Amino acid sequence: MNFDEAHVIATVAEIFRGDHTGVLVGIGDDAAVVKTSPLSVITTDMAVEGTHFNLEWSGAFDIGRKVTAANLADIYAMGATPQYLVVALTLTGSETMEWISDLAQGIAHEAKSCGVIVVGGDLTRGVIKVISITAIGEVEKPITRSGAQRGDSIYVTSLPGWSAAGLSVIQKDTLDDLEAYAVEEFCAPNVDYSAARALADSGATAMCDVSDSLITQAEQMALASGLGFKFFKEAFTASPEFIALEELANKEGVDVWQWIFAGGEDHVFLATGVDLPGLGVGEVVSGSGVTGLEMKKAPETWRHFN
Amino acid sequence: MNFDEAHVIATVAEIFRGDHTGVLVGIGDDAAVVKTSPLSVITTDMAVEGTHFNLEWSGAFDIGRKVTAANLADIYAMGATPQYLVVALTLTGSETMEWISDLAQGIAHEAKSCGVIVVGGDLTRGVIKVISITAIGEVEKPITRSGAQRGDSIYVTSLPGWSAAGLSVIQKDTLDDLEAYAVEEFCAPNVDYSAARALADSGATAMCDVSDSLITQAEQMALASGLGFKFFKEAFTASPEFIALEELANKEGVDVWQWIFAGGEDHVFLATGVDLPGLGVGEVVSGSGVTGLEMKKAPETWRHFN
Repeated sequence: MNFDEAHVIATVAEIFRGDHTGVLVGIGDDAAVVKTSPLSVITTDMAVEGTHFNLEWSGAFDIGRKVTAANLADIYAMGATPQYLVVALTLTGSETMEWISDLAQGIAHEAKSCGVIVVGGDLTRGVIKVISITAIGEVEKPITRSGAQRGDSIYVTSLPGWSAAGLSVIQKDTLDDLEAYAVEEFCAPNVDYSAARALADSGATAMCDVSDSLITQAEQMALASGLGFKFFKEAFTASPEFIALEELANKEGVDVWQWIFAGGEDHVFLATGVDLPGLGVGEVVSGSGVTGLEMKKAPETWRHFN
Repeated sequence: MNFDEAHVIATVAEIFRGDHTGVLVGIGDDAAVVKTSPLSVITTDMAVEGTHFNLEWSGAFDIGRKVTAANLADIYAMGATPQYLVVALTLTGSETMEWISDLAQGIAHEAKSCGVIVVGGDLTRGVIKVISITAIGEVEKPITRSGAQRGDSIYVTSLPGWSAAGLSVIQKDTLDDLEAYAVEEFCAPNVDYSAARALADSGATAMCDVSDSLITQAEQMALASGLGFKFFKEAFTASPEFIALEELANKEGVDVWQWIFAGGEDHVFLATGVDLPGLGVGEVVSGSGVTGLEMKKAPETWRHFN
């Protein structure tokens, strides 16, 4: 043990401290007390060492950012605004205080970028590191996965695939600029939360965060809406990022559509509606299921649990 | 792998399903949408295999009950009423569906005993099992740890120590009735949530859940309130449970006060105030710190992180 529990809690609590008019009781009591709106949105997302992150590849700051982003993206995907986080940490006891501080700084950094504050947590010990975050937000009119209407267009806020590309090249000894960008997106994606806000404000009928893969999430949204999702593969090539991603895929000898359609963890937002901001990539049709996301070989979709 | 992710999620979601007028969107979207009151209470508590539970000692149902109880007790300790839970699970992939179902049943059982429903979660994989729960509740007038007043009496809702006693005898081959009761309390304590409610309704000035140890929690409450906590050791012997616990301690050759003062995880409630229901065990005095909780040897307080 390099540290004691009270010291870790005090250090982390100091990093999480901040001003927020909604917080009546913050870290340090049995529970936090916060102001909430009549409708709240709640989500939880856990990152496990060896599954979601790897100490060889990612620094503590990025690990903190990434798991926080996964939670915040889920809140924005409901058309909601995040307000508060609680953070449960399992540490092994072999961490340095610097590593723990960096992790907390990463969480606080991503949270503050959305005006969100950490109001509570739990610290415990185990043989691997685990970070479990729960985010709470406010919403007036939730946007679920089930609201897609026949005739709606389908949009993504940007081109998915960079995180999968990063995972593909991360073990190389030297990285060129494109590879380095992909690795950064894998280690801690820069989520465009404002794009989700813009979709909600523009009247998106259904929305979700592409945390697994476009194929998986589109199937879930089509099923929930009781309609079919028809994608136009060529539409993705209109993204200003497509040429770069394709160049990287060619260099790696990978089908770029494998990254775009089956990659995960980019936290791009997928939405349906009429005249929405973003890249139009398909339409909602009668029937069921997803078409147009075919690849050269069977998809290897991103799954944490396989 | 004995199962696939979708099957596990579907099975667990079915066990968690229930009627609750506050839930607009439950399990299955990016986040849950629930009705909340103007003031909400939020807490998180994680249980880690090898630290909080051990598969040799505890069945999945009890593990589920115990981590849920830890969260619910924290909500009640604020004078609040729990409403919703989100549950993040790390499984190793070697579990049977029966074990997973039992875990979910234990969580649902404890939640339903308080009128609480699971509205969301996350499922992932790791080399050990981890259960991380966040509870959200409603409160009108929060009771913090800092509200104790000089002259208040100090109360516990029942005698702490049974969980520590259970841990002490759990490795025996055969258990008598008293030992079996203690082991049950260790594996999944029967928390008297209504006692916390009664303390809140009777005007408790400060309250907390004794999840660590009476010594630790009393010190925290005294510090937060800026006063001293003076305990009367003899007052604990008035508990109807004292004779049984002392008998077990004598048999084990343990100082019973070690269990009562330094044991953890009973989730007894500690409160201050005037004429409260419960066992009066001390008074709030000028000064600082805690007196009256002395044992024959230095306390070995329950810590998850040492």
